[in-house]
Amino acid sequence: MTGSLTVAGLGPGDGALVTPEVSAALAAATDIVGYAPYVTRVQPRDGLTLHPSDNRVELQRAGDALRLAAEGRHVVVVSSGDPGVFAMASAVFEALEAAPQWQDLSIRVLPGVTAMLAAAARAGAPLGHDFCAINLSDNLKPWPMIEKRLRLAAEADFAIAMYNPRSASRPEGFERTLAVLREAGCGERLVVFARAVSAPDERIETVRLNDATPEMADMRTLVIVGNSATRRVGRWVYAPRHAR
Amino acid sequence: MTGSLTVAGLGPGDGALVTPEVSAALAAATDIVGYAPYVTRVQPRDGLTLHPSDNRVELQRAGDALRLAAEGRHVVVVSSGDPGVFAMASAVFEALEAAPQWQDLSIRVLPGVTAMLAAAARAGAPLGHDFCAINLSDNLKPWPMIEKRLRLAAEADFAIAMYNPRSASRPEGFERTLAVLREAGCGERLVVFARAVSAPDERIETVRLNDATPEMADMRTLVIVGNSATRRVGRWVYAPRHAR
Repeated sequence: MTGSLTVAGLGPGDGALVTPEVSAALAAATDIVGYAPYVTRVQPRDGLTLHPSDNRVELQRAGDALRLAAEGRHVVVVSSGDPGVFAMASAVFEALEAAPQWQDLSIRVLPGVTAMLAAAARAGAPLGHDFCAINLSDNLKPWPMIEKRLRLAAEADFAIAMYNPRSASRPEGFERTLAVLREAGCGERLVVFARAVSAPDERIETVRLNDATPEMADMRTLVIVGNSATRRVGRWVYAPRHAR
Repeated sequence: MTGSLTVAGLGPGDGALVTPEVSAALAAATDIVGYAPYVTRVQPRDGLTLHPSDNRVELQRAGDALRLAAEGRHVVVVSSGDPGVFAMASAVFEALEAAPQWQDLSIRVLPGVTAMLAAAARAGAPLGHDFCAINLSDNLKPWPMIEKRLRLAAEADFAIAMYNPRSASRPEGFERTLAVLREAGCGERLVVFARAVSAPDERIETVRLNDATPEMADMRTLVIVGNSATRRVGRWVYAPRHAR
């Protein structure tokens, strides 16, 4: 059993944000496994088999990848951004826990530039002070848990990076998110809507939370709510390093 | 005025984790400005002036960089990891706010692989569910604010990535951090100590918080406290995707 499994992050989209470590892993792979739009980002070549799959089949995809590696293949599971942040790495370890026969496989996780870092860089430095990252999808956790975390994050005065703010199947969650944060006294905070960061149709927009509307976010948007001190300088938004 | 200022993240240390975007910026630079250990990571060449500086002079360094760019130089300010996470980007915007005459300068922020992502990848996927990032240094904020954030993060059941857990000038802060989290009921949580990630002397160690001691962390350590569901599978540590 001389196969291997690498879980790699492709960054937010632009090839210039893919680390050389990940590029080398892709060049050495025999098989690429992942959600179809991410597999499409890997250049096809002789000797490389692409295995695109649908959304919401993460655990099955992880099991398939482990099986291929156990057969001796050199498999790279690709995620957008960083594979450890709301992406495939957790699913791979969940699948591994359920399959003790594969626990001796050679496995590596290769980090990448996750969406909130790319979005923050385009906006300025809204994550320059303490912050949190919350996945707003309630596919994998109950909605009241998300609301509780939003309230506590506001009380802690964290900047809040929000992944998966809104999708066609969950149109109401982001509206509730804005309402919870207004109730928590965050209405005057700056909010960055970063859509399609590093892609040709990138769009960065910053408004006060009181002026934010649910339609400003979609599936391709990363939202960063600033902390109470986050401020503008020219076209930039940043969190001061000092806090009192 | 045709100079430029680029704020770039060099990643955790290994050259294979520097993005091509950052490598291109370094190749086009006339001046590199930064904390000396990070400037040392840039290859010297003809036409490139290195400006290493000491720790704790971030604002002065940022002003120097802006001045050089205003003189027509192509300046790259380097940070370890990502420049927007507890690094130079916020200091640059703070300096820019104080110097309106430079607000038309061409400025870019280039993201990088921040320490917590590299550490998490080595350990498995401890940031696979909602998490927060807290800078444990009280140089720039009062200690009670840090304690309050730790308590709220525990209540929110976030995984907690801790930057700058311990230094010679602040030996007691991390001991207090462990005590606060024990009081908050986190004693059974898994804690990852990731030291010198991607460097030759890298060391990853995982223990229960009740078994953690202050000496396990130093200036080069990134600490990740798991959430209440974080678990081991073989040598790996991961946060399950689901929560109840």
